[in-house]
Amino acid sequence: MTQLKRSTCPITNVLDLVGDKWSLLIVRDILIHDKHRYGDFLAADEHITTNILADRLKRLEAAGIIAKTPYQNNPIRYEYDLTDKGHDLEPLVREMVRWGLKHIPGTGKV
Amino acid sequence: MTQLKRSTCPITNVLDLVGDKWSLLIVRDILIHDKHRYGDFLAADEHITTNILADRLKRLEAAGIIAKTPYQNNPIRYEYDLTDKGHDLEPLVREMVRWGLKHIPGTGKV
Repeated sequence: MTQLKRSTCPITNVLDLVGDKWSLLIVRDILIHDKHRYGDFLAADEHITTNILADRLKRLEAAGIIAKTPYQNNPIRYEYDLTDKGHDLEPLVREMVRWGLKHIPGTGKV
Repeated sequence: MTQLKRSTCPITNVLDLVGDKWSLLIVRDILIHDKHRYGDFLAADEHITTNILADRLKRLEAAGIIAKTPYQNNPIRYEYDLTDKGHDLEPLVREMVRWGLKHIPGTGKV
């Protein structure tokens, strides 16, 4: 159940879900780098901290963008994957790549 | 001159420029609603505060996404418009509209 907060504008509500410095990097890691585990996300070049990572995974799951399934017990550990809704962010992510490569000098490999 | 901070990933660097809750709403207002003045941006449904608006206009200008031209003196007031680089954000903004309308119930008019 989505609670619209600032307005009914779709752009505003997309920003309320993924308009931060980290959420779409987790989406990138799953979508483009085929990473699925907590430690994989921590190992990315941007050095996300454990508390931000845990928070963003929780938010992305609550938003229905990712879903987790256990791959180990004692202690339980999860793998994260994109839902259909999350996978549909691919055009947005690809457009960010296009714009970034074109307009930000020094950018390169995703 | 762009200073790459977190990594050379284009997605990361796009997020470092516009990965917040407000910057792309200003781009939206110029691009879709043909708004160009400080008071127009303040009047949007999302009720941006004056300090956040002033900060984001400064950042967007520093990033080469918008440019300002004076339309009045005493006191001097500016109109803001997208540069070519800023206008090239249109596909990204349109893709956010598409995804939002499709996946976030209750969203509607931009």
